[in-house]
Amino acid sequence: MPEFRLEPLSGRRVIMAAARAKRPETFAGPGPKAEQSNGRALPARLEGCPFCEGNEALTPPEVLALAGPGGAERAPDSPGWRVRVVPNRYPALDPGEHPEVELPRSFFPGESLFQAAPGYGLHEVIIEAPEHNRHPAAFSPEQVLLVIEAYYRRLLDLEEMPQLRYVQLFRNHGRTAGASIEHPHSQLVALPFVPRRLLNELERAHRHYLQQGRCLCCRLLEQERHAKERIVAENEMFTAFMPFASRYPFETWLVPRRHRASFTASSSDERAAFASLLREVLGHFHRALSSPPYNYYLYSAPLRAGELPHFHWRLELVPKLATAGGFEAGTEIFINTTPPEEAAAFIRDRGRSYESWKKDLLCPGPAQSSARGQF
Amino acid sequence: MPEFRLEPLSGRRVIMAAARAKRPETFAGPGPKAEQSNGRALPARLEGCPFCEGNEALTPPEVLALAGPGGAERAPDSPGWRVRVVPNRYPALDPGEHPEVELPRSFFPGESLFQAAPGYGLHEVIIEAPEHNRHPAAFSPEQVLLVIEAYYRRLLDLEEMPQLRYVQLFRNHGRTAGASIEHPHSQLVALPFVPRRLLNELERAHRHYLQQGRCLCCRLLEQERHAKERIVAENEMFTAFMPFASRYPFETWLVPRRHRASFTASSSDERAAFASLLREVLGHFHRALSSPPYNYYLYSAPLRAGELPHFHWRLELVPKLATAGGFEAGTEIFINTTPPEEAAAFIRDRGRSYESWKKDLLCPGPAQSSARGQF
Repeated sequence: MPEFRLEPLSGRRVIMAAARAKRPETFAGPGPKAEQSNGRALPARLEGCPFCEGNEALTPPEVLALAGPGGAERAPDSPGWRVRVVPNRYPALDPGEHPEVELPRSFFPGESLFQAAPGYGLHEVIIEAPEHNRHPAAFSPEQVLLVIEAYYRRLLDLEEMPQLRYVQLFRNHGRTAGASIEHPHSQLVALPFVPRRLLNELERAHRHYLQQGRCLCCRLLEQERHAKERIVAENEMFTAFMPFASRYPFETWLVPRRHRASFTASSSDERAAFASLLREVLGHFHRALSSPPYNYYLYSAPLRAGELPHFHWRLELVPKLATAGGFEAGTEIFINTTPPEEAAAFIRDRGRSYESWKKDLLCPGPAQSSARGQF
Repeated sequence: MPEFRLEPLSGRRVIMAAARAKRPETFAGPGPKAEQSNGRALPARLEGCPFCEGNEALTPPEVLALAGPGGAERAPDSPGWRVRVVPNRYPALDPGEHPEVELPRSFFPGESLFQAAPGYGLHEVIIEAPEHNRHPAAFSPEQVLLVIEAYYRRLLDLEEMPQLRYVQLFRNHGRTAGASIEHPHSQLVALPFVPRRLLNELERAHRHYLQQGRCLCCRLLEQERHAKERIVAENEMFTAFMPFASRYPFETWLVPRRHRASFTASSSDERAAFASLLREVLGHFHRALSSPPYNYYLYSAPLRAGELPHFHWRLELVPKLATAGGFEAGTEIFINTTPPEEAAAFIRDRGRSYESWKKDLLCPGPAQSSARGQF
């Protein structure tokens, strides 16, 4: 019997339609495979890739670099880095002067309905490794921590810019998830306003807090840990679970157990635990779902919002395994055919089961064509 | 220079980033091609396809059939129909008893945050032609009108069911747009509540109407027709334009010029004009963009809402040419790289330019592999 499920933080409804079921096994491919480009194995360094070590001249000047050993003597925009952050060469927004123009909230009689404001903002790329072919699921723990530290330091820096109100940090992995460059990277887009999706959730959280004196997400975390069945993995400071009203098969959230509104308020211990759990979950997905395309994005308070007692930051990870169609576009209601309880059990079970996956990562066998991208 | 653009009806913001530009030409393929399945041309009738004429026994009993000539003597669930509507064999919702259970709006202390309601609703398929390989862009005017009449008659019937509040009618064309069966069809999902997306737009429209005594969409239509540059096509009763703040490249809306809240309030003349313009626009897209995958969906008032003076129904048509990634998922803000002014000019120009496209439709040449699905 299908169900309407309510996602408590956002208030959205989801149709959980297990009778149209895709059993979790449907999504498991032939086993982990190496990253490939057009069926060929990828090289460690690619001529012309702007993100490869040695090609630093192909990007705009870096805004941050975390250096390797002996990095103290490294000159900017030269080799020797381990994570590097640069402005996007084809930015979605313009980093020039902030125009101080606001879009209207309503339209006066006689006014034009075609209202635009200059697209001020920042668009940066976080290059996650010097090597072109380093699969993020094969990153060392130290490398993942460096990536998380780069996120943290960029967000701290951007918090100082009064004209910015929100930074969306995100990662697109795989072509069907929107990645146009193979070299492992994340991105951030900094906006002069707070997106409506976040605003709606903040208002909902605020109302709950005023009525009950508790953070709704703290309460959710408590109930998920008690229910156990949707937990994917956990460590001493973070919990990864699939939300009760997941929009997509295998949607997973990583939530800090200590209440903090913003990722920028995390301690260094927390960032280490966050990096460790993220690496673990990505590894599970890689093994259980044959290196699926995915998006993840940080969901954190607006810049300089201070210690909001009602909002709790998280990371949302969504493998791109299902296609949204006209129903989803028209209603913004998602039909999910894989209940999170089954998906979480599958990941807990299968995510740990391939003993040999690691050695496959950089030693590809013969080229395989992947049906994964066809979902 | 990128822009933030405001979509007046929904209030959403879009980033129009023409500097990352995909010129409209980027989306034009090698020219129209026949529909293919794994590189082979499709047959007119396919053994085992539940939607083909002669295979009526493979579907649940029909709820509506529009018959061809001599159809008066046709028995239900037998050949001789031209459009046929059947319940989905794998429904996303359950058509059984309405459970009269509502999801809560907030959570009392101590209450479970895992709230679900039985998934009551209907899920039907509108089979648009008896032939398996009839491309919708090659439908005769009469066939398109029959499809529109089937939409209309199902919506009128469902309006009688007091437990339903909204019907989402939609079409997914092509695998990347979510279609899992090639045989031309649309679908409807009937819900016991009004989706939040529509509710938000209704509230916004209501506020505008109360303040100014005019339908916001009527005003928009007037301004679009005056501006001209985003108009794709028009006839005596309907206008097709690309919205100023289009979320996707080539997003197009079809809007009736006479104010009506619901498609079910349309006259037969209006339905004829609607069918004619829809056919024209789909033909333009087919020719200019090489038969792109697309979704369309009807955006109409809740069932039995009466003649709302503030809401105006429309059809939204969205070719699936771009991939939404982590930024869009995290913020619900879309980055569109193809300004609607350019896209509309391209469609007006190229949509009419292939003289020979029609004969190609059912007489495929050698199999081509299509890169179209890879966006």
